[in-house]
This record gives sequence, C-alpha cells and structure tokens, in this order.
Amino acid sequence: MTGKFISLEGIEGAGKSTQMAFIADYLRQHQLTVVETREPGGTPLSEEIRAVLLSPREETMADDTELLLMFAARVQHVQQKILPALAAGKWVLSDRFLDATFAYQGGGRGVSAERIQALSEWSLQGVKTDLTLLFDLSVATGQQRVQSRGNARDRFEQQRNAFFEQVRHCYLQRAANEPERIQVIDASQSVPLIQQQLKTCLDKLIRL
Amino acid sequence: MTGKFISLEGIEGAGKSTQMAFIADYLRQHQLTVVETREPGGTPLSEEIRAVLLSPREETMADDTELLLMFAARVQHVQQKILPALAAGKWVLSDRFLDATFAYQGGGRGVSAERIQALSEWSLQGVKTDLTLLFDLSVATGQQRVQSRGNARDRFEQQRNAFFEQVRHCYLQRAANEPERIQVIDASQSVPLIQQQLKTCLDKLIRL
Repeated sequence: MTGKFISLEGIEGAGKSTQMAFIADYLRQHQLTVVETREPGGTPLSEEIRAVLLSPREETMADDTELLLMFAARVQHVQQKILPALAAGKWVLSDRFLDATFAYQGGGRGVSAERIQALSEWSLQGVKTDLTLLFDLSVATGQQRVQSRGNARDRFEQQRNAFFEQVRHCYLQRAANEPERIQVIDASQSVPLIQQQLKTCLDKLIRL
Repeated sequence: MTGKFISLEGIEGAGKSTQMAFIADYLRQHQLTVVETREPGGTPLSEEIRAVLLSPREETMADDTELLLMFAARVQHVQQKILPALAAGKWVLSDRFLDATFAYQGGGRGVSAERIQALSEWSLQGVKTDLTLLFDLSVATGQQRVQSRGNARDRFEQQRNAFFEQVRHCYLQRAANEPERIQVIDASQSVPLIQQQLKTCLDKLIRL
C-alpha cells in the first residue's frame, strides 16, 4: 500500500514547524513511517537550489528564473525522494509544496496562475498532495511572531506586507477551490485547539 | 537599431572558443560593440546555476531537473543581459544557446524534443538567435582534442562517446531543419579556411 503525501502551508509565523513535529509524532503513534521534508529543498541537490533561491544578491532575479528554479528543486524532490518514499508505503510530510508557488510567485510576485499551471503540469505530471494543511493567520500577527524570533531575514522574508497579503489571499482562494484537498486551520487559535483539528483531519486520512 | 544575436554550437573540442575570439575581433573591426557571453551562465546568478549543473555529485540529477535548471539560467541570461544588450544596439556572441539544450538534453539524454520545445516556448517566448554557427566535428577528433588539453572533466564531459554521437546527430538535424539560421562549419578544416567561411556568414549578417 502506498503512503500518503501531506503538505503544510501558510505565511511566515503561522506555526508550520511546531505543527509539523506534532503531526509526525501523531502519525508515528499510529505505526506509520514518516518522512519529514521541506521545499524548496528536501534532497542535497534541491537544497543547493534552495540556497540559490534564498540568497540575497545585487542582481535582480527575474520572476521566470525564480519559478524555473522552484520547479527544478521540486522535480528533483518529487522524483528522488517523495515518490520513492510513497511507493515504499511511507507517509511524506512536506513543509510547503506546490500551493506555495501559486501563493508566493503567483499571488505575491504577480506571475499569472496560467503560467504557473503550465509549468506545474510540465514538471509534476499529476503528482499532488493527498492533504494540504493551510495554517491561516493575519499578516500582522505572522510578522510579529517572525520578528520576535530575531533571525536574519531571507530574500522572501524581506518582502513588504502587501506582498504577504497577496500570498495569504491566494492561499485562501486555492483552499476555496479545492476544499477536499486543502484544509484551512485558523492559526490564531490556541495550540490545543489547533491540534484537535489536526487530529480530526489526520484520523480521516489514516482511515482511508 | 537593435544588435544581432549569434550563438556558437558544437561538441567539445570543435574549437568554439578560438573562433569566438576571432568573430568578436572581426565584428569590432566593423565598428560594432560586441558582448561575449556563454551558456549556461552569462550573469553572476546564471553562473551560480551553471555551477550546480556542472558539479559532479553523488545524487543523480533527474533529466527534468537538469532541463529546468538550464532554462532557469537561460531565462535570467536572456532577460538580464541578452535582450538589454540587443536593445542597446550591441551584438551578442554566446558560446552555446538553445540548440545546445536540444542536442545535449534531447539528443544526448533522450528527453523528448516536444518536452524541450514546450519549456522553451514557456521560457523564451520567441527569443532566438539571428545566426547560429555549428562547428561540426567527428566525436573521435573532438575527444582527442579535449584529452590533449588535459583539464579535469565536468559532468557533461564525462559522458561516453555514444552520448556525443547523439548530440552531434541532433545538432546536424536541427541545422538541416533551419538552414537559414544555423550554418554548419566543418571544424576539421584548417583555421584559415574556417575563418574564411565565418567572414562570409558575418558579412551577410552585417549587411542586413
């Protein structure tokens, strides 16, 4: 039996990392083998591409360049890690996947959804998540949480609030269009409430 | 008046570098401003992508990953360097361009020409060379010349002869399909003979 493919999405500060650890534990308690991974990245080569994507530099990165690099990292991740793990019956948990590209490069940078869709079809040939958990949070709250961490900010985190508003809007729109696959979790709630909702989503997927 | 875009193609050992210097000199003698560049690469970011493409590593690079990285480097090169130079009336001389992708990733690796064409249309939206000079040479002669240089061999140069036979075949096929744009130069000839042919091609383009 093949495993299931789950992605976690949301703007910075929405709490993906904390909840990813919780989900992995919960699935392991159900005797499932879990692979935790992230995008862009997930294999050594895809992490090399991630470094190119995230490094601030003087030269402007064209939007199309960014998109092609994102899909280069994703194709490598899918073909070398995700599909083999699923075929071996493992569950794959990814911090971001395709929906992030529509949200960040589409909503945020303004690349047309049609162009992203074309590249997605070329690259993924039908691969998609079984479940995507969208941790939704207001941009103001997300920014406060990120600032309190005090880390250096990468090329994406340096964007302005209007950018993140578009990202959030695009995520919510995708969830509205695919309510079965994308579950919206209100990330402003208390951790116990969030985790209760996560358990409900996961229990449903485990029983499938 | 916009400049002209010329690419030089051919398998390793065909003498592209030597002839590129000759062509640049010849164009400058005609009071033209010349930008010499190369692919993959040509801008600092595209050179970063080139380094990812050429480094030998343990992890297998999926063919689709390689193709997406090639086009990421190319889109950046075209948008940030080639198109602005042409618009400013400069002539652009590139050591390899799109035809190399059809030859190496298509002919060499066996990716379908349809898939490369789809990605090319997505990425380049009609940008093409005014003239492509294909330096054609037997694989055996090319390999002898490369070996006599004695440099370390990159990920592409480590391929076997059958790979380069396919690359050469694909280059010649493209030249046969687009005889106006792609001029085949027999690279086994003496340098004076080659340069006489180059002058004829260039004079025609200068007069246009």
